Amino acid sequence: MKAPTFLEAGEVAEYTRRIDAEDIAAFARISGDDDPVHTDADFAARTAFGRCIAHGAHVMGLLSTTASMMSRRSVARGATGTPVSAGYDRIRFTRPVFAGDTLTARYVIEEVDDGRARTRARLEVVNQDGATCLVGTHVLAWVMPA
Amino acid sequence: MKAPTFLEAGEVAEYTRRIDAEDIAAFARISGDDDPVHTDADFAARTAFGRCIAHGAHVMGLLSTTASMMSRRSVARGATGTPVSAGYDRIRFTRPVFAGDTLTARYVIEEVDDGRARTRARLEVVNQDGATCLVGTHVLAWVMPA
Repeated sequence: MKAPTFLEAGEVAEYTRRIDAEDIAAFARISGDDDPVHTDADFAARTAFGRCIAHGAHVMGLLSTTASMMSRRSVARGATGTPVSAGYDRIRFTRPVFAGDTLTARYVIEEVDDGRARTRARLEVVNQDGATCLVGTHVLAWVMPA
Repeated sequence: MKAPTFLEAGEVAEYTRRIDAEDIAAFARISGDDDPVHTDADFAARTAFGRCIAHGAHVMGLLSTTASMMSRRSVARGATGTPVSAGYDRIRFTRPVFAGDTLTARYVIEEVDDGRARTRARLEVVNQDGATCLVGTHVLAWVMPA
């Protein structure tokens, strides 16, 4: 069977981006989560973190970018379905992300299930010091044309 | 032992919000994920979805809001630690979210572990028709002052 995903285990997509205070404020506006630990420097200074931290779902957004890089690669190779994010498993925020941090999101295909038109990827986000801020897995699924 | 979380199983937090095309565009800018399935109506019309869809991590942002509602409730009741998002388990995007959809995010505490200062919540996001777009679970953890 011709693989409907056109992806292979071991393939990697990476995306690097700095998270600025303005980005965190924009995420707060879009999501509605304007908790002061994210948006109020004076408040955040009195928490265990000492500084404003990025939202977890914001950090996951960088992984969304890597998943889209992978899905475009699949389509460019001939996949006929529409690749779509099916879900995330066991996401853990292992270290806070602060304004000014430069993050690298890494997406590594671990399993390819051509029969079900799905792939599973290992996720990692590291900061400018190489410290891991997020780990988890992602499932990409190909929706076939009707 | 006095519960460090000050939350109980069965407690609910809800947040309702409309997702507009401008919100999706803003999320694309913040995350870097400007895949045309999210941002290009003509491209999206030729996919299995037929219309631009919201990013999964964007939809999860509404759940970040409900988690913050719960964490503020905990602090208002006397918790001394800083509640923080520890992670998400088995998130599944069960239906696409389109621009103009009005979503309700629901966060229901299922387990309270006062010894480890953690709670686990059941997550659900439904659209204006009551159809479920996302299911999963979330872990909130209290970081104690040094």
